Amino acid sequence: MLYIIGLGLGDEKDITIRGLEAIKSCTNVYMEAYTSLLSFGLSSNGLSNLEKLYGKSIILADREMVEEKSDDILSEAHNSNVAFLVVGDPFGATTHTDLVVRAKKMGIDVKIVHNASVMNAIGICGLQLYRYGETVSIPFFTDTWRPDSFYEKIQTNRNMGLHTLCLLDIRVKEPTLESLARGRKIYEPPRYMTINTAIEQLLEIEQAHQESAYGEDTECVGFARLGSEDQVIVAGTMKELQTIDFGAPLHCLVITGKTHPLEEEMLDFYRRGT
Amino acid sequence: MLYIIGLGLGDEKDITIRGLEAIKSCTNVYMEAYTSLLSFGLSSNGLSNLEKLYGKSIILADREMVEEKSDDILSEAHNSNVAFLVVGDPFGATTHTDLVVRAKKMGIDVKIVHNASVMNAIGICGLQLYRYGETVSIPFFTDTWRPDSFYEKIQTNRNMGLHTLCLLDIRVKEPTLESLARGRKIYEPPRYMTINTAIEQLLEIEQAHQESAYGEDTECVGFARLGSEDQVIVAGTMKELQTIDFGAPLHCLVITGKTHPLEEEMLDFYRRGT
Repeated sequence: MLYIIGLGLGDEKDITIRGLEAIKSCTNVYMEAYTSLLSFGLSSNGLSNLEKLYGKSIILADREMVEEKSDDILSEAHNSNVAFLVVGDPFGATTHTDLVVRAKKMGIDVKIVHNASVMNAIGICGLQLYRYGETVSIPFFTDTWRPDSFYEKIQTNRNMGLHTLCLLDIRVKEPTLESLARGRKIYEPPRYMTINTAIEQLLEIEQAHQESAYGEDTECVGFARLGSEDQVIVAGTMKELQTIDFGAPLHCLVITGKTHPLEEEMLDFYRRGT
Repeated sequence: MLYIIGLGLGDEKDITIRGLEAIKSCTNVYMEAYTSLLSFGLSSNGLSNLEKLYGKSIILADREMVEEKSDDILSEAHNSNVAFLVVGDPFGATTHTDLVVRAKKMGIDVKIVHNASVMNAIGICGLQLYRYGETVSIPFFTDTWRPDSFYEKIQTNRNMGLHTLCLLDIRVKEPTLESLARGRKIYEPPRYMTINTAIEQLLEIEQAHQESAYGEDTECVGFARLGSEDQVIVAGTMKELQTIDFGAPLHCLVITGKTHPLEEEMLDFYRRGT
């Protein structure tokens, strides 16, 4: 049996009892390391906190390991219980869908243990989840690569009065171009997009298109470390949010559409006096 | 302190450790009863299962109680810890947003404990969550009331290639019209819309509009009791799903937009042979 277990958003205590019981039944416990190193502070003593609570040692699996060695991980699941731990809910990222597909093709039983993810936890700001349009991703711009496919999507959402969740780029364990050319991978330091950078890029693209999909006076909500004890949530215009230091990652941003009175009342609690 | 604690989707074991610890610190524990009676089988011995695990007695709060007596519930939270338990995640329904607004206005600290909800757990079928458009609600039609505002939204989503989550009507503790006229409330038996009824209503509205927003050959995914041990998930056309008995509630339905190959591979696992 392969268990894919969502850990939620905060720390080791956000696992469900069902998830914890599943882990205790497993011989091997893997954990995806793309975002977890950060979310769970695993670089310091986070991993041991998890291991202490779970009573199991955890094998960190980075993207390369999951993509290259998934057959090994999965074949263990033929004869024993194997857990694969994921920050948030198991289906936040395509990688885990791929893992499930491979497992099922190998005839392995898969059980999913759900948990909160950014996709539903953003409900805390008061904007109703059923009033969101398509989610967009904001990638880090480079000198030569400034993709703007998010622009039209935000425009469409806002034309329909819908809110837009913007997921901000995470670059973990990306090989440098130079090292790829030399045939030996050296990795860039991890980078996580801040709300400030996201707004800067959004406004640059609005400048280029000039179609008023949004602007510096558009109401937004910035989320840092959503679901953690030290989360920061601030509502304000793009211009206002750009002046705020949200602190450590992960960040995400919601661009509002048309808001209802109850939504406005909730947002008011997250505004900062000027 | 007021804790609003998501219980997740399945049974008492879907609570997080953080949520369980919060409950143990509370003097009073309320639980919203609109959907929970069902999801957690509370009519039989579900409540005692919860109470056993939590080590607390639980006060069931129906919609009337929450709307009419929330000031009493909240004033307790001034001097002690009070928990309000919610099936899924706390911000699945507007009612809880309203409770938070009232609490904050009374100067009461509010802490949210997140969990999985239908909004993110539908990811299990393999359709990527960021490829969903606006969520729609399908209400029970009556002889005189056949609202179809969902039609245009589904059409818009599908025109953009996006999937649509359809939340199906729940009617719990609705007073009968007759009893309202007599001034003494008598309640209708609870009703939960099945996938079959939802598709019947969807196709009726398509017949009326004739704009091919969708049709009986449109690929859908039906979910029954999502997140429970006995969940049923089936992918197929509207016509195919209409012949399937999904069993006990709750049901929900996803109408696909444009699917990608990896999404198709996952859906294949949920198809039934013809």
